[in-house]
Amino acid sequence: MLSRPSTPARNEDREQLMRLTQALTSAADTFPGRTASIDGTITRTWIERHERVTRLAGALRDLGTAAGDRVAILAHNGDRYTELLFATWWAGGTVVPLNTRWSAAELAHTLEDCSARILFVDAPFLPMLGELRARVRSIETIVCLGGKASADARLFTEDLIAGGQPCADAMRSGEDLAGLFYTGGTTGFPKGVMLPHRALWYNALAIAKEMGLDSRTVWLHAAPMFHLADFAANTSIALVGGRHVYIPAFDPEAALQAIEAHAVNSTILVPTMLGRILDHPAFDAARTRSMRRLLYGASPMPEGLLRQALREMPHVRFFQGYGQTEMAPGITILPPEDHVLEGPSSVRLRSAGVPTIGCEVKIIDEQGRKVARGTIGEITARSPGVMLGYWNQPEQTKTSLRDGWVHTGDCGFQDEDGFIYVVDRLKDMIVSGGENVFSAEVESALSTHPDVGAVAVIGIPCKTWGEAVHAIIVPKPGASIDDASIIEHCRKRIAGYKCPRSISVSTEPFPLSSAGKVLKRELRAAFWEGGSCCVQ
Amino acid sequence: MLSRPSTPARNEDREQLMRLTQALTSAADTFPGRTASIDGTITRTWIERHERVTRLAGALRDLGTAAGDRVAILAHNGDRYTELLFATWWAGGTVVPLNTRWSAAELAHTLEDCSARILFVDAPFLPMLGELRARVRSIETIVCLGGKASADARLFTEDLIAGGQPCADAMRSGEDLAGLFYTGGTTGFPKGVMLPHRALWYNALAIAKEMGLDSRTVWLHAAPMFHLADFAANTSIALVGGRHVYIPAFDPEAALQAIEAHAVNSTILVPTMLGRILDHPAFDAARTRSMRRLLYGASPMPEGLLRQALREMPHVRFFQGYGQTEMAPGITILPPEDHVLEGPSSVRLRSAGVPTIGCEVKIIDEQGRKVARGTIGEITARSPGVMLGYWNQPEQTKTSLRDGWVHTGDCGFQDEDGFIYVVDRLKDMIVSGGENVFSAEVESALSTHPDVGAVAVIGIPCKTWGEAVHAIIVPKPGASIDDASIIEHCRKRIAGYKCPRSISVSTEPFPLSSAGKVLKRELRAAFWEGGSCCVQ
Repeated sequence: MLSRPSTPARNEDREQLMRLTQALTSAADTFPGRTASIDGTITRTWIERHERVTRLAGALRDLGTAAGDRVAILAHNGDRYTELLFATWWAGGTVVPLNTRWSAAELAHTLEDCSARILFVDAPFLPMLGELRARVRSIETIVCLGGKASADARLFTEDLIAGGQPCADAMRSGEDLAGLFYTGGTTGFPKGVMLPHRALWYNALAIAKEMGLDSRTVWLHAAPMFHLADFAANTSIALVGGRHVYIPAFDPEAALQAIEAHAVNSTILVPTMLGRILDHPAFDAARTRSMRRLLYGASPMPEGLLRQALREMPHVRFFQGYGQTEMAPGITILPPEDHVLEGPSSVRLRSAGVPTIGCEVKIIDEQGRKVARGTIGEITARSPGVMLGYWNQPEQTKTSLRDGWVHTGDCGFQDEDGFIYVVDRLKDMIVSGGENVFSAEVESALSTHPDVGAVAVIGIPCKTWGEAVHAIIVPKPGASIDDASIIEHCRKRIAGYKCPRSISVSTEPFPLSSAGKVLKRELRAAFWEGGSCCVQ
Repeated sequence: MLSRPSTPARNEDREQLMRLTQALTSAADTFPGRTASIDGTITRTWIERHERVTRLAGALRDLGTAAGDRVAILAHNGDRYTELLFATWWAGGTVVPLNTRWSAAELAHTLEDCSARILFVDAPFLPMLGELRARVRSIETIVCLGGKASADARLFTEDLIAGGQPCADAMRSGEDLAGLFYTGGTTGFPKGVMLPHRALWYNALAIAKEMGLDSRTVWLHAAPMFHLADFAANTSIALVGGRHVYIPAFDPEAALQAIEAHAVNSTILVPTMLGRILDHPAFDAARTRSMRRLLYGASPMPEGLLRQALREMPHVRFFQGYGQTEMAPGITILPPEDHVLEGPSSVRLRSAGVPTIGCEVKIIDEQGRKVARGTIGEITARSPGVMLGYWNQPEQTKTSLRDGWVHTGDCGFQDEDGFIYVVDRLKDMIVSGGENVFSAEVESALSTHPDVGAVAVIGIPCKTWGEAVHAIIVPKPGASIDDASIIEHCRKRIAGYKCPRSISVSTEPFPLSSAGKVLKRELRAAFWEGGSCCVQ
């Protein structure tokens, strides 16, 4: 029989629980020979990924990475991205995934803010290196993921992995900081959401549960991986021993090709991406026949688009996710069973669903008291996914995180059946003649008009009402906008005071954030700064 | 260059994460009007259950329950059981679910060991109250769940709930002790496995993920709720907002009736129970047509029985669970996809599956080193489900919990595809009808009989119970063995199911190892290889 040498149980053992590297270790142990990732022509098994990550972690240590050091990544989607994440955790560091759409100024601010020591840069972003290098003093090492090495940047080649000595797992876990996720700041510059291992680990498990992911899951990384929405799949897929498929950046044809070629069955898309796939000339539902689960979120889904998607891809189970980076990010989920097109339950298509497993949601008034069911208030949430706070922003942290609850800044209500309806961002709410008008509700009504392609509703200055409801519409191709018809359509669906007082037509697509959200701040600017006013 | 995060969230906020009461609060908030439980003719909604639990918690506080106090429960399955669990947690206490098959001596030992202050007792166990009261000094309050109140025991009536003032959630969570689960001790008496909120909460989430539980889940509590296997469903079902259905104790006809009457779709059974259902004269697969998920475990499943079940109930997805109380309890799971009756994959029916989500399994040799794939060693496991240790048993804790890994005492190997095979559940342990019988405990009881010189207890094959307890006795010089007297002696000391079903007498000394331990493997061989069986 096996003998039992006795060593004491130590307190710090418990701190090894909820460790992101556990997902990789388990996958490599349980499914060593199965394919872990497909990136173009490069395929890796789980044991290969594990081996590469431990070597890359060794290389990171050699480059001077110590426990808690920030490792920044400015890159398109790819297997190297996932390898870097796990290698950073393995070496004990904190990842800082950078937004690939940001300007050099925004990137420099972020890198300085978190005092990153190592920066990994993908080829397309090399032209910004000079400016970043000059402005960010903390950076000691820059590694290029492609392109050419230069005097101050070494090239990431297979040699870096091949030459790295596999190192032991730093065993960071629990409350140790795993990632800094910079979210667009409304006050000018992004702020860093501090997420510990515990938060990302919990969220990965919750997503796996809600979507029913398992070792047969083949996940397409088409949405940008630096955003937490798709980022989370890095850990979820490892936790269940599934398979990653990557395309560098979203493109409808590339996404369809990857789905077809690799029998992709699961992914997350923002509504804009889904719309571009459905409207693509080469779209054919048969090309997506392997698809089983599609999670959408990060911005409101126009009801018309959702109905189109449900009709055209009946073999796909749709999940709506609502969340926030501060919650790592899941808050609510609308499961496939509640994606019903007809009958009384079809109203739920407009809801964000019910709280994800393990998450509490409380809707509160301005005094912080829980409101009555059906009453609109601010959505607050609490779960093991909650952030530690904002990096170096104690005041912002106090505003957003109170008594363990994240204050989302979103307005919503909960119906009798427990479903949460997100009616608007607090800051996008229009106050017209003393009435609160939620732009998302008006947009939803307008989006069902046959001529409307995209629509954004904002408040514009109004002498009479303070603010007036204004709609900016991008017509569908070939359609023209008849204001009277639009307003008539709207009046049948929502109260008169919510209907647009004025409409303008735009032939340009709306300015979007990197998360695909319409930048209403920019739309509003033209009206408010120009001193124009509503026409009454 | 390690700068400290400037604004960590307050420590106490994070301690509110992974809180078992969260499951109840969320279910009541999200699904207030849906049916939470059906127990005979009594049906409760989630909001009713929440209300009752908060009142019962208030009553527990009035009865003197303070944070961390042990609240013991000796009861059959029922909605009151679940209410008591959540009320105890709500009031800040620690639950101690007692094995309903134990003798008064075993119960008294357990209650004394954990110094329980309050004991809830179901009607059938009232006759033992006198002895328990006399022996256990820590008990201040006894509440009868049925029967008649007496001088020293008050009766649990609806008044207790109706009269209780709803109290605030004590917000115990994380590493706070949620439950003490006594498992049969190898040294004579059971030891208490300390499971914190974190462990039970994680396990509930992992089960929900692995089995795909959701708000449409209707769970039958047919296996005894004091065992962690079914106990875990108390939290899982609340986490997903499903529905509980109870029968007081397992009975094939009662189980079938409950499944039919309440459209039960999910449950856990030990193999013996499944066999009794399938062999019951009134069994008809059509009566189980609502069933979707059946988790089995706690003892080895005879392959013939499993094949029979798969054939007779093709509409049911079978899951095998392997675990240990020390892991809260999940370690591995064999999913429905790997329940294949024919072809090369059918060998997996004999495996325990792959590690559950979030769980690491490592098979080690006598020196604690990981063995090569395919090699038999001791199964060790680590996950957020890991226990804090054994109550008041530092030495036992050191043996079982080393560097954060639980040493299961089970031998097994992992195949090339990651599947774990348990080849020898702890050498000395007998699994009879789903109950673990520790031979040392039975030997300890037998050894006190005046005629017994030496004794070895082993499991021998048994059609009904899987294994049956068999004692081999070497009489004292000049003594002769009277089976009836031996068994009578035993029944006074340990539970009936632990007593030998058969006895054989040996005049030869037992074969010993070099360390002087009885080589039970050799004793067992005669029974297992010879194809003999217990006499029922």
